[in-house]
Amino acid sequence: MSIFTSPVAKIFTQPILEIDLNNLLDNYRKLSEIIAPATPSAVIKDDAYGLGASEVAKILYEQAECRNFWVAHAIEGAKIAKDFPEANIFVLQGIGEDSVDLFKQYSLIPVISSPEMLAFWKKQAIEVKPVIQVETGLNRLGFTKANLKRLSRKDLRIFGMVISHLSCADEKDHFMNAHQLEEFNFIKQKYFPELPASLSASDGAFLGPDFHFDMVRLGAALYGINTAPYRPNQMQNVITVKAPVLQVKDLAKGEFVGYSATYRAATKRKTAIVSIGYGDGIPRSLSNTGKVFFKSEGQWKEARIIGRVSMDNIICDISGIEDICTGDMGYIIFSEYTLDDIARDAGTISYEVLSRVGKNTRYKRSYITK
Amino acid sequence: MSIFTSPVAKIFTQPILEIDLNNLLDNYRKLSEIIAPATPSAVIKDDAYGLGASEVAKILYEQAECRNFWVAHAIEGAKIAKDFPEANIFVLQGIGEDSVDLFKQYSLIPVISSPEMLAFWKKQAIEVKPVIQVETGLNRLGFTKANLKRLSRKDLRIFGMVISHLSCADEKDHFMNAHQLEEFNFIKQKYFPELPASLSASDGAFLGPDFHFDMVRLGAALYGINTAPYRPNQMQNVITVKAPVLQVKDLAKGEFVGYSATYRAATKRKTAIVSIGYGDGIPRSLSNTGKVFFKSEGQWKEARIIGRVSMDNIICDISGIEDICTGDMGYIIFSEYTLDDIARDAGTISYEVLSRVGKNTRYKRSYITK
Repeated sequence: MSIFTSPVAKIFTQPILEIDLNNLLDNYRKLSEIIAPATPSAVIKDDAYGLGASEVAKILYEQAECRNFWVAHAIEGAKIAKDFPEANIFVLQGIGEDSVDLFKQYSLIPVISSPEMLAFWKKQAIEVKPVIQVETGLNRLGFTKANLKRLSRKDLRIFGMVISHLSCADEKDHFMNAHQLEEFNFIKQKYFPELPASLSASDGAFLGPDFHFDMVRLGAALYGINTAPYRPNQMQNVITVKAPVLQVKDLAKGEFVGYSATYRAATKRKTAIVSIGYGDGIPRSLSNTGKVFFKSEGQWKEARIIGRVSMDNIICDISGIEDICTGDMGYIIFSEYTLDDIARDAGTISYEVLSRVGKNTRYKRSYITK
Repeated sequence: MSIFTSPVAKIFTQPILEIDLNNLLDNYRKLSEIIAPATPSAVIKDDAYGLGASEVAKILYEQAECRNFWVAHAIEGAKIAKDFPEANIFVLQGIGEDSVDLFKQYSLIPVISSPEMLAFWKKQAIEVKPVIQVETGLNRLGFTKANLKRLSRKDLRIFGMVISHLSCADEKDHFMNAHQLEEFNFIKQKYFPELPASLSASDGAFLGPDFHFDMVRLGAALYGINTAPYRPNQMQNVITVKAPVLQVKDLAKGEFVGYSATYRAATKRKTAIVSIGYGDGIPRSLSNTGKVFFKSEGQWKEARIIGRVSMDNIICDISGIEDICTGDMGYIIFSEYTLDDIARDAGTISYEVLSRVGKNTRYKRSYITK
């Protein structure tokens, strides 16, 4: 077919990111039921794992009465504080010299995890009651028992909530779950019997009511990730990533594909060059192993990624998939091949893939709302 | 030492990203000398690999008279076009229905890589002369010889430049280099004998004058990456990533660290929790294998990352490193442990690490200029 007589083909170049806030809202409601009567709260740190902290907070605040949000850094809290005046915004990394002004200006609530940070806090004249994080076995941030022993009674009364964080809650029967629960109960009863408490994030939500305490911090599961991978995902898919085919190309037997010529065609192949790459957050570890999906003849067909994923392009093998042409959309992440699937194929976790994708400004980004 | 009698410790929480535009400018000048008399040009796609396309373009435009810039997508070109009126802005992914208005509005120059895109281009009434990309062995975007044969003489006169892209130029003696050079020379002479030509990116710059043609597209090397890894890096380091220690913690023998309890202390250890993670673009694949550096007693000391890298924190083993305390800076990427080093330890390439880091807005970001 000559390019001179054919109709002008569809030509698109930009990758597309769709964020389904309806599904996110449904996930929040479902999780809220699972953890009831504990209070749900939303983890929107890291710009809501790249999906937009403002947009995510807005729908949860307005349509699900969410009033408790967790961010990692004060600058993340500052960006949303004005829009949600009735919300508590907890800052997991805590307070420091580089953020104290933001805490004052936006009434953010620090999570205090060390004696040094507490000493710093006590020098500030800030009205809010901070959260204390205690160590129960993750060995990340948190007051150890040795630290706790040295707190005065007056110190103990500073706080408004006590939290810790589970290390292995995505494995239902991991011995650490029971160990951390016991440690947390011990610390809470000994030092903070009156305080509201929070131990679990999304994965802990599925471990049963003993793990829920007063508040559960819902993050990954909100965004559609299966945080209870020992059973089918109960969450709905939230993100769709797709990108147009820029070119369809025939490969002769023996030809190489991509950087470092890591793929060589054993037989004649047909390839599609898709306009997305690691510059859009698609892991380069999918080189020669990931998949792109196309709708063909009413069905989803799988095309293997061949050669290295490059910054702006992915090449996939569409031999045997009928009628793929320029302008057709290759699906990278969607309901049939979720964050969990792509993360498994990329050799990492869904959280990391999600956190990468949404920060890239080359996407045509849209939010689905009712 | 009691927290009640000690002076208030330094407490910081925010990771820091420093971008040395002086070194970037020096790299550009050095590369320009290497490729002279070919014209240098700057690849600032993917927001200058995350470092800020506006800032990078500005210093090269104002201080090195760079007038040729390459972006991947039209929206990237549109963001900088107004500020650099005398520059040519080439768009590598080309033009489509979703970007044609930006090409018209900002006088962007598309790189046309397929007959379908050419047919689309011909329907538009745009004054600029586009670039044609031809296939020489990468088997990514580009007109194949079969495609070229079907172009009319009139079609061939549409273009203002011919380019291709090398697949293996970071390996000096790779057979693909000579093969692609031969293909490019053949196509150029047969179809575009009069046109300026460009074959090489940063890695091709080091392959000698045969590979330089009229213009070299300088990207990765500008940003300090060694694109000629078969010899010592001639480029200067451009980025520094560091983050404060939030807490110093003693680990008893047998204790676990991090998600999924992948690290267990064989002996008593001392750890530092550093306020940076994969949410800041630090690859999670550094779990239990990467390094954080501290200045101690006037020397750089290496602390191994233990346990999983999490979204906001990295835990490292500082046993034996004296005097590390909260507020001290752990160095993640810097002149002594460069992008090339961290990428090697993370099992990927420097380009991917660089492209991830700079897009995260939680950094306190600063540009070093003279």
